[in-house]
Amino acid sequence: MLSSAKIKLINSLRFKKYRDRYGLFVIEGDKLVGEFLESGKPVKILLALDKWIEKTDKTLVSSAEEIIKVNERELVKVSQHKTPQNALALVHIEKYSPDKLSVSRTLSIALDNIQDPGNLGTIIRIAAWFGIDNILCSHGTVDLYNPKTVQSSMGALLHVKVCYTDLAVLIPQLREMGTSIYAATLDGEPVQNIEKTDTGLLLFGNESRGISGELIPYVTNRIIIPSFRKALPGIDSLNVAMSAAIVCYEFRRNRRIK
Amino acid sequence: MLSSAKIKLINSLRFKKYRDRYGLFVIEGDKLVGEFLESGKPVKILLALDKWIEKTDKTLVSSAEEIIKVNERELVKVSQHKTPQNALALVHIEKYSPDKLSVSRTLSIALDNIQDPGNLGTIIRIAAWFGIDNILCSHGTVDLYNPKTVQSSMGALLHVKVCYTDLAVLIPQLREMGTSIYAATLDGEPVQNIEKTDTGLLLFGNESRGISGELIPYVTNRIIIPSFRKALPGIDSLNVAMSAAIVCYEFRRNRRIK
Repeated sequence: MLSSAKIKLINSLRFKKYRDRYGLFVIEGDKLVGEFLESGKPVKILLALDKWIEKTDKTLVSSAEEIIKVNERELVKVSQHKTPQNALALVHIEKYSPDKLSVSRTLSIALDNIQDPGNLGTIIRIAAWFGIDNILCSHGTVDLYNPKTVQSSMGALLHVKVCYTDLAVLIPQLREMGTSIYAATLDGEPVQNIEKTDTGLLLFGNESRGISGELIPYVTNRIIIPSFRKALPGIDSLNVAMSAAIVCYEFRRNRRIK
Repeated sequence: MLSSAKIKLINSLRFKKYRDRYGLFVIEGDKLVGEFLESGKPVKILLALDKWIEKTDKTLVSSAEEIIKVNERELVKVSQHKTPQNALALVHIEKYSPDKLSVSRTLSIALDNIQDPGNLGTIIRIAAWFGIDNILCSHGTVDLYNPKTVQSSMGALLHVKVCYTDLAVLIPQLREMGTSIYAATLDGEPVQNIEKTDTGLLLFGNESRGISGELIPYVTNRIIIPSFRKALPGIDSLNVAMSAAIVCYEFRRNRRIK
């Protein structure tokens, strides 16, 4: 039975204030809940229909701290979807500090005030696909645990460390460690012409304002994704998630798989 | 003054049924409305605040068949946004038949039952960026004039011809004309290794089911975007819009600008 206090708790987690207060976020969907349980991430509460629990590995199910069997009607009350699937879970938020050494030795992504939760989720998915382990977000970037971010990252959350930090402090430190800072801008060198390395920070800026002025002095390479048309009235850039997809692809294009 | 009949009409256009019935769709936002007027597209009704009309070129404003001055309160009643900008317009829907000759002589995109309006809008924006003039959609693909598609295409609608057609009829005809069909799949050759041409059809399938079985026999090249990780539990593909961004980028990568 799902108590009204639990319903209230789960629905409150749509808002960052309550996610921060309780240190919890919500994941939805049979596949995603299964993947989180399998990954060993700390699941606080698992809500699921009988039929889902029956067909799921017992050890996995019992790895949740609390298991609540619910019916369809109860699930609708806490789901973001009109027709929810069979499982939903509350997961403990894990906070990472930026691992400067790991970032300086690999290819990483930095996001400067990305506002759209769908863009953040998509970029996490791109990072996972292209073997990028670390995403550094400015404090002004949208919350990782926003339901839309979780949904659009589609499980890639499990493969990528996303941490929030002051980029104006961290990026100068990375520069001192010799890390190249590649910034996606509106003017610069076509990304295909850049000499690629297995290390470096790929920096993407806010959807409308681009990269903060205070970070610009630390950029070592300004890169663009050239348009195939000389002039395109009304369109001056690609969406940031598309830019990230292309830049990450290009950096991994001729590299050997991990 | 905005009549209640007009309010009803505009709000009904959120649904395909009424867009089809009236042959109209809605665009919102100062920049987009300005671009549509400038492009010479047939604007049936322009709704705008006084201040927007004053600062906008008179010839542009008067190119609309009907101009309705509205106040903020009225604009909220017909806007999809909680805080609308200063202008909104109803535009006549133009329907294109697929231009086989143009498609066979250029690089084009075909979409097989893409369901997400945001994905379609993003793909239109990618096509515009990479100088792709034609997108052929299966009849099962989400409606081009869905408000979310219009919003996410961000004016790229003006630069790309999107038409709906029976791909199972058209693709065999294009094959007979010698057009290569490049399909984004889960197994095939890495896109960077494919020999690129300035012609061909880039085919993308439904978000969960991929490309329809009836189209598969006509595919000349199956392509993949290789992941940089050998195995990635829970992630078996990139989102279709990201795949389209990377495939289009790769086909234009070493080509001269138009």
